[in-house]
Amino acid sequence: MRNLVEKSYFILIFFIFIICQSVLADKKSLRNQEPCKRLELYYHDILFDGTDLANATSAKATNETALGDFKFGMLIVFDDPITADSNLLSPPVARAQGFYFYDKKNDYNAWFALTLVFNSTQYKGTLNIMGADLMAVETRDLSVVGGTGDFFMAKGIATFHSDIFQGAKYFRLKWDIKLYECY
Amino acid sequence: MRNLVEKSYFILIFFIFIICQSVLADKKSLRNQEPCKRLELYYHDILFDGTDLANATSAKATNETALGDFKFGMLIVFDDPITADSNLLSPPVARAQGFYFYDKKNDYNAWFALTLVFNSTQYKGTLNIMGADLMAVETRDLSVVGGTGDFFMAKGIATFHSDIFQGAKYFRLKWDIKLYECY
Amino acid sequence: MRNLVEKSYFILIFFIFIICQSVLADKKSLRNQEPCKRLELYYHDILFDGTDLANATSAKATNETALGDFKFGMLIVFDDPITADSNLLSPPVARAQGFYFYDKKNDYNAWFALTLVFNSTQYKGTLNIMGADLMAVETRDLSVVGGTGDFFMAKGIATFHSDIFQGAKYFRLKWDIKLYECY
Repeated sequence: MRNLVEKSYFILIFFIFIICQSVLADKKSLRNQEPCKRLELYYHDILFDGTDLANATSAKATNETALGDFKFGMLIVFDDPITADSNLLSPPVARAQGFYFYDKKNDYNAWFALTLVFNSTQYKGTLNIMGADLMAVETRDLSVVGGTGDFFMAKGIATFHSDIFQGAKYFRLKWDIKLYECY
Repeated sequence: MRNLVEKSYFILIFFIFIICQSVLADKKSLRNQEPCKRLELYYHDILFDGTDLANATSAKATNETALGDFKFGMLIVFDDPITADSNLLSPPVARAQGFYFYDKKNDYNAWFALTLVFNSTQYKGTLNIMGADLMAVETRDLSVVGGTGDFFMAKGIATFHSDIFQGAKYFRLKWDIKLYECY
Repeated sequence: MRNLVEKSYFILIFFIFIICQSVLADKKSLRNQEPCKRLELYYHDILFDGTDLANATSAKATNETALGDFKFGMLIVFDDPITADSNLLSPPVARAQGFYFYDKKNDYNAWFALTLVFNSTQYKGTLNIMGADLMAVETRDLSVVGGTGDFFMAKGIATFHSDIFQGAKYFRLKWDIKLYECY
């Protein structure tokens, strides 16, 4: 009899321990968890040069300032195609709508704020992203600060990786988007 | 005796089950929960035309580019009144301070980032909002990415609904703001 | 025997109560908790006047509009040094990269979005901040909407305090950054 009581007691202590662990783990070690959702995407930006109306996907809203030689202060508004592979001509899986500007006087460096707009059979909804694009660094992390629709209340990290630059005309970034809060 | 042990055992298992449920529910089904706070507001934007200094609440910081015919790249800075009903002349319950720009070459489409500034007897604090304003869609969701004061650490969804457009001069949006994280 | 059962029963109820409390506390009273991380920093902004290329850390991307006399619509892009004390010449502990613009027609008032970029032995990573800078108010709160690296998934409040203004050329802000979500 006494044995049974003790047994049930220890089983319960064990359950409580497990619950405590999971509650605390939830809070503390998000950093070490796998993302609850991950998207690998390619971002293509074709800057309008005044003539290529059909192809261009972005345009300068402001001119560069005289502060250095790296386009400091030039702000570009974009509505860019997002593809699942690196091919510009692949069918877009989303649009990236937002802006970036250059912000360093002695090197190229940028800052982005944008919305990833999904409207496919796979996903409907948006992800909102902002942060510094430290172009001199191999990979750099921006913040996914919110989401809507299928990405309701999402939060996470968007890792940018420079893929190709073709002068001032075209560049491609690889985006590795890892969501750590999904609902 | 044995009965009593079993009874307490099952009662405890039941409690533990309830706790587990509530912890998991908290995390998983936020999507299906009611907002912890909801605000229905009207946003009024009166674009400065160079003469109406007294009435205007916003102004073009950049001109539209030549990329299409839908004001691509035009960036408007605003300090707009927010009212509880649709009447522009109602006493403002908040100010919306921020900017939007147009970003589509073949249709009207915009992108917003702004702060809702409350300073009334009812609310003191701010809500920070960003996201795509897909103007062609009946209602579109932006992200409430943070809050301060009475809206400390808030997160949620701001649903925009086009209400009235009067040419380039005045437009009104209905905002349905749903917070899912309140503290 | 019966005593033992009751004792273990009450001990367990007590544990369950403690767990419930901590789970709920976690959610509800964040507002009353101490920040999990706090940083006091100084932000220095030296606006480019067209000649001081060496010293300037920011530049006007757009000119002020004619809407009022308080630089409405002027947008400044910056890559500003952040120091641990108020001395502009102290070694920077971070960079602040982003922009602000003036947005009030009858007073000075601004709106900020920026990334704090840390790359020191103490911290590596970024904090993303946005919100209204209500310059007429002694201290004003903006939102820390995300973080990366050492500040992975951070959220919190950035309190701005005007420290010194030297005409249009230089100003300094004290930033009190309080994170309430740390991982």
